[in-house]
Amino acid sequence: MKPVVTSALALLCAAASLPSHAQFAKSEDAIKYRQSAMFIQGQHVGRLGAMASGRVPYDAAAAVANAEVVAQISRLPWAGFGPNSEGGKAKPDIWKEQAKFKELSDRLVSETDKLLVAAKAGNLDALKAAMGPVGETCKACHDSFRSR
Amino acid sequence: MKPVVTSALALLCAAASLPSHAQFAKSEDAIKYRQSAMFIQGQHVGRLGAMASGRVPYDAAAAVANAEVVAQISRLPWAGFGPNSEGGKAKPDIWKEQAKFKELSDRLVSETDKLLVAAKAGNLDALKAAMGPVGETCKACHDSFRSR
Repeated sequence: MKPVVTSALALLCAAASLPSHAQFAKSEDAIKYRQSAMFIQGQHVGRLGAMASGRVPYDAAAAVANAEVVAQISRLPWAGFGPNSEGGKAKPDIWKEQAKFKELSDRLVSETDKLLVAAKAGNLDALKAAMGPVGETCKACHDSFRSR
Repeated sequence: MKPVVTSALALLCAAASLPSHAQFAKSEDAIKYRQSAMFIQGQHVGRLGAMASGRVPYDAAAAVANAEVVAQISRLPWAGFGPNSEGGKAKPDIWKEQAKFKELSDRLVSETDKLLVAAKAGNLDALKAAMGPVGETCKACHDSFRSR
């Protein structure tokens, strides 16, 4: 490997001298990770919501592009809610009601997969129908587990 | 649509009364969006770097899982560098040298696609070889366009 590559790798690995089971170097990273994923998700869900509600014109290609990101990103935040990662807007109930939290996070993954299928159907009614359960799932989880 | 659904959708759409070409409600959102994507990317690239450098044991399944996220997330930050979104650690040169910036961002997308193929090959040497160009591309762009 060339020195420049080694040097770039070394930079990338600076925070990575961890046991393989530890995903985050510190709890602040876990919090930032889940908040980052939620923010990205919120941006793309917001764009789909704007189409579904008629605030912006329906654009089939944009709907698919946004739904693809949502279906991917919906898988990410949960790793950031591991043991000893309390903080941010996360209510302590998350760590007390793990089964309920997992049920809601699994439901979001499932509903955003359906959202992508609906977006690919290429019509506004399908998008609207699929956005309902996504919005309900976001709201159910935020009502239970996110501080205001 | 049931009232609860309408209400959840209304929440999702609160920030979305924008012309369809405007991706972000305000420049702060664009900055937060690109920083969020870069942070998520850094976490997963860091885990791959730890394997490539031998700091943590090679785990073929984890390598694929991380490379999948990296290949997806590498597509996202660039939308956050649109007109009038200066700020954060982004150097003004980004908006003065758009061709160079685009070349580097396109290269990252291409190299992270190759990284995913390499991770799926299921051996450490392939992963190491593909991490080199990814690390070089990160470094080249950060050296030119990110403030310290």
